[in-house]
Amino acid sequence: MKKQITVLFLLIATFTFAQIDKMEPPFWYEGMNKSEIQVLFYGKNIAENTVSISNDVVITNVTKTENPNYLFVTIDTKNVASQTLKFTFKNGKKTFSKDFEIKKRKENSALRKSFDASDVMYLLMPDRFANGNESNDSSPNLQEKANRSLPGGRHGGDIEGIINNLDYIQELGATAIWSTPMCEDNDKGYSYHTYGQSDVYQIDARYGSNEDYKRLAAEMHKRDMKLIKDYVTNHWGAEHWMFKDMPTYDWFHQFPGYAQSNYRMTTQYDPNASKRDAKYCMDGWFVPSMPDLNQSNPLVLNYLIQNAIWWIEYADLDGYRVDTYSYNDKDGIAKWTKAITDEYPYFNIVGEVWMHDQAQISYWQKNSPIARIQSYNSYLPSVMDFTLHDAFGNVFNEDNASWNDGMIKFYDNLANDFLYDNTNNLLIFLENHDTGRFNQIYKNDFKKYQLGMTILTTMRGIPQIYYGSEIGMAGDKGKGDADIRQDFPGGWKGDTNNAFTNSGRTASQKQYFDFSKKILNWRKNKEVIHTGKLTHYIPQNNVYVYFRHNDTESVMVIVNNDIKKHQINNSHFEENLKNFTSGKDVLSGQNYDLKQDILIEGKSSLILELK
Amino acid sequence: MKKQITVLFLLIATFTFAQIDKMEPPFWYEGMNKSEIQVLFYGKNIAENTVSISNDVVITNVTKTENPNYLFVTIDTKNVASQTLKFTFKNGKKTFSKDFEIKKRKENSALRKSFDASDVMYLLMPDRFANGNESNDSSPNLQEKANRSLPGGRHGGDIEGIINNLDYIQELGATAIWSTPMCEDNDKGYSYHTYGQSDVYQIDARYGSNEDYKRLAAEMHKRDMKLIKDYVTNHWGAEHWMFKDMPTYDWFHQFPGYAQSNYRMTTQYDPNASKRDAKYCMDGWFVPSMPDLNQSNPLVLNYLIQNAIWWIEYADLDGYRVDTYSYNDKDGIAKWTKAITDEYPYFNIVGEVWMHDQAQISYWQKNSPIARIQSYNSYLPSVMDFTLHDAFGNVFNEDNASWNDGMIKFYDNLANDFLYDNTNNLLIFLENHDTGRFNQIYKNDFKKYQLGMTILTTMRGIPQIYYGSEIGMAGDKGKGDADIRQDFPGGWKGDTNNAFTNSGRTASQKQYFDFSKKILNWRKNKEVIHTGKLTHYIPQNNVYVYFRHNDTESVMVIVNNDIKKHQINNSHFEENLKNFTSGKDVLSGQNYDLKQDILIEGKSSLILELK
Repeated sequence: MKKQITVLFLLIATFTFAQIDKMEPPFWYEGMNKSEIQVLFYGKNIAENTVSISNDVVITNVTKTENPNYLFVTIDTKNVASQTLKFTFKNGKKTFSKDFEIKKRKENSALRKSFDASDVMYLLMPDRFANGNESNDSSPNLQEKANRSLPGGRHGGDIEGIINNLDYIQELGATAIWSTPMCEDNDKGYSYHTYGQSDVYQIDARYGSNEDYKRLAAEMHKRDMKLIKDYVTNHWGAEHWMFKDMPTYDWFHQFPGYAQSNYRMTTQYDPNASKRDAKYCMDGWFVPSMPDLNQSNPLVLNYLIQNAIWWIEYADLDGYRVDTYSYNDKDGIAKWTKAITDEYPYFNIVGEVWMHDQAQISYWQKNSPIARIQSYNSYLPSVMDFTLHDAFGNVFNEDNASWNDGMIKFYDNLANDFLYDNTNNLLIFLENHDTGRFNQIYKNDFKKYQLGMTILTTMRGIPQIYYGSEIGMAGDKGKGDADIRQDFPGGWKGDTNNAFTNSGRTASQKQYFDFSKKILNWRKNKEVIHTGKLTHYIPQNNVYVYFRHNDTESVMVIVNNDIKKHQINNSHFEENLKNFTSGKDVLSGQNYDLKQDILIEGKSSLILELK
Repeated sequence: MKKQITVLFLLIATFTFAQIDKMEPPFWYEGMNKSEIQVLFYGKNIAENTVSISNDVVITNVTKTENPNYLFVTIDTKNVASQTLKFTFKNGKKTFSKDFEIKKRKENSALRKSFDASDVMYLLMPDRFANGNESNDSSPNLQEKANRSLPGGRHGGDIEGIINNLDYIQELGATAIWSTPMCEDNDKGYSYHTYGQSDVYQIDARYGSNEDYKRLAAEMHKRDMKLIKDYVTNHWGAEHWMFKDMPTYDWFHQFPGYAQSNYRMTTQYDPNASKRDAKYCMDGWFVPSMPDLNQSNPLVLNYLIQNAIWWIEYADLDGYRVDTYSYNDKDGIAKWTKAITDEYPYFNIVGEVWMHDQAQISYWQKNSPIARIQSYNSYLPSVMDFTLHDAFGNVFNEDNASWNDGMIKFYDNLANDFLYDNTNNLLIFLENHDTGRFNQIYKNDFKKYQLGMTILTTMRGIPQIYYGSEIGMAGDKGKGDADIRQDFPGGWKGDTNNAFTNSGRTASQKQYFDFSKKILNWRKNKEVIHTGKLTHYIPQNNVYVYFRHNDTESVMVIVNNDIKKHQINNSHFEENLKNFTSGKDVLSGQNYDLKQDILIEGKSSLILELK
């Protein structure tokens, strides 16, 4: 602990203005909806100063806390054009000043578009994807050093590695990247996942710089791709500088002794829940190394809002994924979400709401008819379809359909779609970085991968794929997180297998990749899949049939999860087939006469574009 | 088939007015909200007549159908005092007439009270409970004869048997009886369950007469008990006289060939469902022997409404249980339910909605916030808590609690209570006549019965118990329905074991009965259990603790489902315990000092009245 404090002092000593160790946000933008901006100043006894500002700008509020090292100064930047302002601090005869820049804003920034059901999201963990710059694998200022031999260690993947492989991701057919968090996580160990952030205005130096991150977004935009940042509102890491010298005692949720969350998110709406359980769910810490932020403290809430808006504007982001959304203070997180979408009305934010009940998941989506029961509105546009994920993890091993088993699980999941306000804005996925890998569960049975991907890419919602599965990567959650977060082959110098290139892929990787590429690229421009109505039929003999259709197009999806082949009698689907005579399978190119029965092999699927 | 038709002709020939074989309802009451009453006349070529009525009463409508043997005559009885009216039929020179009585109504009949959470409902199957009158075991006019040696045969139980044992039921502590249907079911075989009714204005002669049924209600009312009739709106039996000579082709749902329901009730609200599947769910037949009624036909709907109101008024009923509620025409059944509760605003009706998802069950309850999403209102006051039943069927074998197993299943069920409009009006049950028996599932482990009954009798909602379980009866659904519907011991002359009396009970039966009697009689006057708020705590170590409380009383329920004993630290429950210092266990009478830990043995429970 001593050593860390020494490091911190050394850092502080390097700043130009010794009296101000931190100023956040470091700058702001002109013409923002959020024009009243609360600038946090941190420095030894900074609160002993009076503060003023140049250029006729108005200070609307100065807030001091019980910690004299903090000063929160609110200025109104409405109608303040881009320019450099100067804060002046005075304590008796001592004065010093600090520039604060109002920058030009990107044209039409507020109206930026975001990800939606026309996208396919590629989820990657930057430490595990590709190491593009070996010189930043470790950083002198950050505690954990690279050690690729440790499954839970820092492996060296970085922003440069992602940029180097954007062509690969684009070729695959994904249109957006959700990378797990990239802000600094200075935990001593097990920091590679970066969910325990120590500085939320700073990209972790082992991934690159803030400028590198901005460049990643720019490189993606060149390719019409979208960058989605993983934001953590619920907690920071115990190494966060503000945890080590707290602005207020209640900046984080405090208990007598350590209190862990009970993780029972139902307490957030259960009318029978005890107040105790509800408090421990929301305010208890996720893990001991992650202090729980108190969003009911207006200073905290505003800090998080400004930080989130700052990153969108600074890095030119296309969306947010929010970690552990439903563990936050319920009202605080709604205000946070509303503030961002007030600033950027078309900006999409998807929240992690890991539940197994559609009503409970729906609760967290904007304008939810379920949350309305309790007059709650999260303002969160998108939620994750974890119940569909539950189905993906079981169904393809259920060869024998029963009342509850087999393809009926998909059917039943969709039957509750009326509980959601907007099912097109559900994130759908076979797996993610916290779950067992699909190819592990199904023992790399390629046929089952095909079934899963067929449904994932034709279902309502926004498909998310997890790096490496497209080349058949497996990983066992039972062995720990490291096993589901292995390095992408080819991302490191000296990797003997390079799956980023066609020639470098093994035969099996080629099989996975080529199929994935085909189906994802087909989906890219299929508006009927992005926004068309879905009509499905009760599965018969473990065969699930559904249609995506709009006024001009119709696609018939047939998924046979039985091991036996089946004849599909099209008269059953008359209400969807009446105007069509033939269907062309997207994958094989084969034409099917709809007047005749369709023969479908066991464990196979057809995606028929109807004509 | 020929033989049956012969029987029917013989029956018809016995009527006084040969021209009118049936008139339904057989009479009506004065001062009804439903004063416009549609009288069905059935007789050969009856529709060839013109019809008039006496006493200045107005005929507002005469409806003829494609079948000349039916005539539907609507009269307005508003302000028509009790008297006998006369319908006159004329065809050329031939005339004949038929009396129609308007009877006096019971005082305050419309404001009759009904069952609620202060009741405990005793579900019995009349054929299997007690045979009070051996002379009606078979009936010359009804096909299936008594044969107690057949598990699925008619065993001879009847209304007299119920009346004879009302004291037993009252002593047990139940306050209401739900008997499975009692109207005539003239199926050739397997008719004892009586869900395939052949005449809905007639009690099955093997149970007794309409007058006997009325007497049952009267005998119950003497004991402050309530009679709940099991009503079947969805289907009749294939032996129903109106199925044999249909008033209109669409009186029943018709398909080319036989069409069975797919039983996928989600199609009733699933926005993705195909029209075909929704139609087959609602309109398909439950089984081949049960023609599906078409409630979208106004004649059918009105017939069912009048019949239901007639029975309430005639037999002085206290409630309805409606079979297969969610298989009905969605809009038709809502109109039916609304019509009854418009007539009797405090009348309770509980619908069978056999689903495994709280949002889906809630959908069918009156003023459901879930159904509101689709602007639907069933007007059904009460629904069955099948998800709680799911928990009862598993939890007590789950000795090792996990994230999803053990007492958390009860907790999770209640966590979704906010999806309901009124959880006090949920019917809660360990089992019913369609499920495995609790004592079978738990192999007559008395401790587990105690745990189940503790929760059942202290939980929010209306407890329903199933005949015989209170003396330890078991029954295996896997062996077929007959096994879960065995004869109550002592209900038949010559039964060597008579569990209706204390002296006749075996030691085991006594143990079950005495416990059941104690806990049910305690519940009877415990308002805090009937209507108090429920507050529960996340189970710890498979121990579930909850409180029922109101302004004046509080009861603490501790259920230890672990096999090990546990110390309960009361500081955890401070928000519910702060005003209390001791608790007296309802079952043992033992006092507990709340300032000390409470020791609770494995697989046991405490119900503490707090002081």
